[in-house]
Amino acid sequence: MNDIINLQHGSGGEETAKLLNNIIFKHLENPILNQKHDGAFLDLQGKLAYSTDSYVISPIFFKGGNIGELAVNGTVNDLSMCGAEPKFLSLAFIIEEGFPMNDFEKIVLSIKKTAENAGVQIVTGDTKVVERGKGDKIYINTSGIGVVNPSADIKIQNIKAGDTILINAPIASHGMAVMSEREGLQFESDILSDTRNLNFIVKKLIDRFGSKIHFLRDATRGGLASILHEVVSEIGLGIDLFEEKIAVENSVKSACEMLGLDPVYVANEGVFACIADASVGGEILEILKSENQFAAKIGFVTADHPSKIIMESAFGGKHVVHALVGEQLPRIC
Amino acid sequence: MNDIINLQHGSGGEETAKLLNNIIFKHLENPILNQKHDGAFLDLQGKLAYSTDSYVISPIFFKGGNIGELAVNGTVNDLSMCGAEPKFLSLAFIIEEGFPMNDFEKIVLSIKKTAENAGVQIVTGDTKVVERGKGDKIYINTSGIGVVNPSADIKIQNIKAGDTILINAPIASHGMAVMSEREGLQFESDILSDTRNLNFIVKKLIDRFGSKIHFLRDATRGGLASILHEVVSEIGLGIDLFEEKIAVENSVKSACEMLGLDPVYVANEGVFACIADASVGGEILEILKSENQFAAKIGFVTADHPSKIIMESAFGGKHVVHALVGEQLPRIC
Repeated sequence: MNDIINLQHGSGGEETAKLLNNIIFKHLENPILNQKHDGAFLDLQGKLAYSTDSYVISPIFFKGGNIGELAVNGTVNDLSMCGAEPKFLSLAFIIEEGFPMNDFEKIVLSIKKTAENAGVQIVTGDTKVVERGKGDKIYINTSGIGVVNPSADIKIQNIKAGDTILINAPIASHGMAVMSEREGLQFESDILSDTRNLNFIVKKLIDRFGSKIHFLRDATRGGLASILHEVVSEIGLGIDLFEEKIAVENSVKSACEMLGLDPVYVANEGVFACIADASVGGEILEILKSENQFAAKIGFVTADHPSKIIMESAFGGKHVVHALVGEQLPRIC
Repeated sequence: MNDIINLQHGSGGEETAKLLNNIIFKHLENPILNQKHDGAFLDLQGKLAYSTDSYVISPIFFKGGNIGELAVNGTVNDLSMCGAEPKFLSLAFIIEEGFPMNDFEKIVLSIKKTAENAGVQIVTGDTKVVERGKGDKIYINTSGIGVVNPSADIKIQNIKAGDTILINAPIASHGMAVMSEREGLQFESDILSDTRNLNFIVKKLIDRFGSKIHFLRDATRGGLASILHEVVSEIGLGIDLFEEKIAVENSVKSACEMLGLDPVYVANEGVFACIADASVGGEILEILKSENQFAAKIGFVTADHPSKIIMESAFGGKHVVHALVGEQLPRIC
């Protein structure tokens, strides 16, 4: 009876209390969560950032990570992209009846470890259970609150022509790790998701360069191309990219070719774009490279072709990077 | 093509942008949400309360409300129960492929109106789409941030023997409204859900009685009995209740009898229990009655039978109110 989650665990009665006490409160306990109130009480000073995301990834366990790790890092990173230091997360589960209790505990333990790594606390939560066939194993929502770094002034409107565009790591690994798991594909070498927390590297950049960092965005759903499209469509400037600067691991590249996918549209979980004043591009690159040798300046903002992204290949050929139309990889995060 | 939501609306690409712009940003727009960043920037002073809930109610439209209204009021009320003034909400959708666009817009409009009524702003959000059969129309998560009323000192540990227990309205209406919709039952008169925002009445109570209000809790999932059980199991005191003081509308009472349900376990969405110093019980009752004539002092906290709830009937008979075991009404919120 105890090895699967059933509807009674979502009743609000005794079974719910047991599930909470035996798994959630037990593993995630901290002084704020322990108050077990409807909400958490927080002491925070300064300007705050606030973000939410639901995670519906399938499969829930994949090479390099799982849905719980993603749910923590994803919201930690969204706050980081606001120039904030993430502090507190909420955590809400929608579980499909019949989900193995062991898997649930594994996910909660992974959430605990990922939160510790990122230096955030889970302070409030919710657990719902739906009938078989009305969900898919487990969906997780996190929201998060962070304190905005006083040196930060991250705003899409701050981007100007001439700004340099950097990324911190090779792209497309997360999407291909999930796809290979989902399709049961075997690639020469295992592809791992790049899920990681970006708050510490972002803090380093903002502490050092302050308002010269104009914009940050992690390249999740829709990949690098989609976040840059949001930028050009919002600010009415264009972007020039250099294809050979955008690193893709060899195994990821092969996988993309095999599936007919362009890596610039494939989801990441630990890649972000930094758009900054060109004067600090070199120093930013040094810092990014100290964490990942494939960090690179990948292009710049230009007034030449408003609202368009142009990609230049190693051989000098140019093509327009179009906005993603349709759905390439459903439920990738 | 435009009349249902499909997987492309969750891609992070062009279709997602259209859905956001044409429905979500259009209806919910405010200066903070309009920044369209990964997170919202907030200016808040003081001690904060933070809460989250996912809403998986079925059916999503019911007499007296819908899932969108519930998702706003539920989190507004959770913050209110912390003694906080709710300020900002996050809003995250998990939508099943094929969900009618019209219904989605209806829900978003209802969210807008409910948020306005409660004086809160939706400032950040997320939209995911899952395949047919991997969800059930629409699930909504909201989280919320409120500023704790400086006069409030709401803590389960503040409850002491002799405290008076009040409720603000008749119980069990929400659960029975949903059940009648779900089962296609026709009762003599229509039963309406009691979903409503409780933040203003709570503010009134706390402004007036401050730390004499010891504990507040809204009686949602598991009903009045379940929240009082949480109290007695946490504080090691007992509770005496008077059955005839706990109002249940006649149509609701008949519906409960027909379905063999005890109204004290049935979910509410606008009922809260207030546990306060007995010295202010009369004055609190007056204020509650000014909003609902069925508000009542329903019992008191006692040291006589630790961790037990005893219900006294109008004829003097007594019985133990047990903790809810099993699931009475799945997916009621």
